[in-house]
Amino acid sequence: MKTITVALANTPYKIYVGEQLICAKNRLLQPLAMGKDVFVLSNKTVYQAHGKKLHAFLSAHGLRAYVHLVGDSETSKSLRSAISVLQAIVRFDRQKDVSLVAFGGGVIGDLAGFCASIYKRGIPLIHIPTTLLAQVDASIGGKTAVDLPQGKNLIGSFYQPKAVLSDATFLKTLPTPQLACGLAEVVKYGIIKDVTLFSFIEQNYHALLLADSAALSHVIEQASRIKAKIVTQDERETRSIRTILNFGHTIGHALEAAGNYRRYNHGQAVALGMLCAADISAQLGLMPAATVRRIETLLANLTLPVQIKHISLNTILSYQFRDKKFSGKTNRWVLISGRIGRVCVKQNIPLAIIRAAVAKRMASV
Amino acid sequence: MKTITVALANTPYKIYVGEQLICAKNRLLQPLAMGKDVFVLSNKTVYQAHGKKLHAFLSAHGLRAYVHLVGDSETSKSLRSAISVLQAIVRFDRQKDVSLVAFGGGVIGDLAGFCASIYKRGIPLIHIPTTLLAQVDASIGGKTAVDLPQGKNLIGSFYQPKAVLSDATFLKTLPTPQLACGLAEVVKYGIIKDVTLFSFIEQNYHALLLADSAALSHVIEQASRIKAKIVTQDERETRSIRTILNFGHTIGHALEAAGNYRRYNHGQAVALGMLCAADISAQLGLMPAATVRRIETLLANLTLPVQIKHISLNTILSYQFRDKKFSGKTNRWVLISGRIGRVCVKQNIPLAIIRAAVAKRMASV
Repeated sequence: MKTITVALANTPYKIYVGEQLICAKNRLLQPLAMGKDVFVLSNKTVYQAHGKKLHAFLSAHGLRAYVHLVGDSETSKSLRSAISVLQAIVRFDRQKDVSLVAFGGGVIGDLAGFCASIYKRGIPLIHIPTTLLAQVDASIGGKTAVDLPQGKNLIGSFYQPKAVLSDATFLKTLPTPQLACGLAEVVKYGIIKDVTLFSFIEQNYHALLLADSAALSHVIEQASRIKAKIVTQDERETRSIRTILNFGHTIGHALEAAGNYRRYNHGQAVALGMLCAADISAQLGLMPAATVRRIETLLANLTLPVQIKHISLNTILSYQFRDKKFSGKTNRWVLISGRIGRVCVKQNIPLAIIRAAVAKRMASV
Repeated sequence: MKTITVALANTPYKIYVGEQLICAKNRLLQPLAMGKDVFVLSNKTVYQAHGKKLHAFLSAHGLRAYVHLVGDSETSKSLRSAISVLQAIVRFDRQKDVSLVAFGGGVIGDLAGFCASIYKRGIPLIHIPTTLLAQVDASIGGKTAVDLPQGKNLIGSFYQPKAVLSDATFLKTLPTPQLACGLAEVVKYGIIKDVTLFSFIEQNYHALLLADSAALSHVIEQASRIKAKIVTQDERETRSIRTILNFGHTIGHALEAAGNYRRYNHGQAVALGMLCAADISAQLGLMPAATVRRIETLLANLTLPVQIKHISLNTILSYQFRDKKFSGKTNRWVLISGRIGRVCVKQNIPLAIIRAAVAKRMASV
């Protein structure tokens, strides 16, 4: 097991990464100031697959658990759903010392984090992410969010957990497309900060896609270290340091929205977005064109899309210009600077260059 | 005009106190990083009385205001009501740079603060409190809250405003019982930290009750300084320093709840609670019994109740023991230590002493 400290000044916490973390013999919650009551937020799929392990883990700590299951999809992340969860917490919280455990993917983590942040102005929160994407991204950094009918993630808070427990063993039951989705984010960490991580994925993509726990543990640890370091320097996203985490997300978000959040999942959209950002970097002479092909090869090996299908160029660009990173009439891009492992932020990229980069990714029909 | 700095490490802000603050010639919002759009949350009574002044003030800053009015009572502070407000904010926030102005009493401040804290993980918030209670208490310290059907203030956050503008002139239209309610909290600040403030109220209670702006400005400033200093030392109520702000609130909250939040308003309940706490202090030999009579005289002069009517002793005590300050099976009291202006925190006061203190306040029928 590896331990990573997220060294925030007021609310430091630890991320534990490893295999078979969640079992009766590990007392990872012991050092935390928690009461006896634990409200577990999860979904049916995750709880059916791994609920027994969680139950043994919590029981071994002498905790009393109440399990609340919500649906699997993004619709469970609504403000309306948050209210149901909060009312269930009130009913369960008889001893007035309840803590919250988020046991699931990003939807569960975001919803649980939001509820924990606003119930009695904040109760202890433990993340036990069960998808790779949640382990390397959503569970670290304290962003919580729920959706309004008018838009995704419009409501939320910054709220830090007391601990994150990332058990690679849980990923054995994850469908391959979801594993690939998480790996897209891991590739992102390699590109922005760590060429060694990028090379490791190049060499081990097959084991990773087969959910090999040792290989996954390694990339979860490396990715978590990178994200932990970045968010420690910019807890509330006020210092532009977190910006580099958006590499590939500018076009990525536009693609997700343009596909109505069904055509491409987050990782697939980010994969395509990273290729566009890499292409823009090459067009601007910031790095060799060969690096675009190297990234493309890796993403293809990870079964991630490298061509855009079924959405028109103009639709993508129109969504692009609604993005919050384009507020104030300028655009802002995270681009590769020289080589994999180093990025820079550039503003006001000419539209022709953006258009050409996206156009190159369009599948010829 | 007086300026008080709330010197929080990450989110410092200023409180401005004075007469005629909210008018076209004052550009108090100029130094703040705000967009052009301002969402004003207020209620009908306040907006009818003072809306023109606010409008002139905001227009002079070149701000575009959208006014959203909610009902006057505590029912407007529900989570349900917060959702309506959030949806109105989304509709108004076209330029994606909206700020929120809370223009009203404590209900408006708590509701607006909560909405500002969770819309897009936090937008700029300006408090313009229009009741004395909100000026000296709710608008300072960053606590926001809304109610669930299961209980008051169950949902909330810690969220600091960008500025607080306390204009004593607004209090001219405040009904006397509401003025007295705010003065009860001002008396509390005198008892816990400042005998000079306490003496000032003794000497000027008549002018204060007549809403004399100069006298009110003075007590708002002194009370704000005391609260600002305390919350700066204990922003998130984790260091027990804020505890002394609860002087008189232990029995006070029980009285409010036992009276179903109708029999006694907050200030009236706190007045009675302060007398009980003073009596306990005297019983324990912490201060002379004459000090109880001095406080009683002042509260009576301020038209605040000094006797409990229509609620039985046992009802009050049963609510008392549900209070959060009694969690963990112990009780904790803020008591007067020697003289007015100095308090201490004591645990596990014998029930007989608490009962005797409350019993002395029961009106003989």
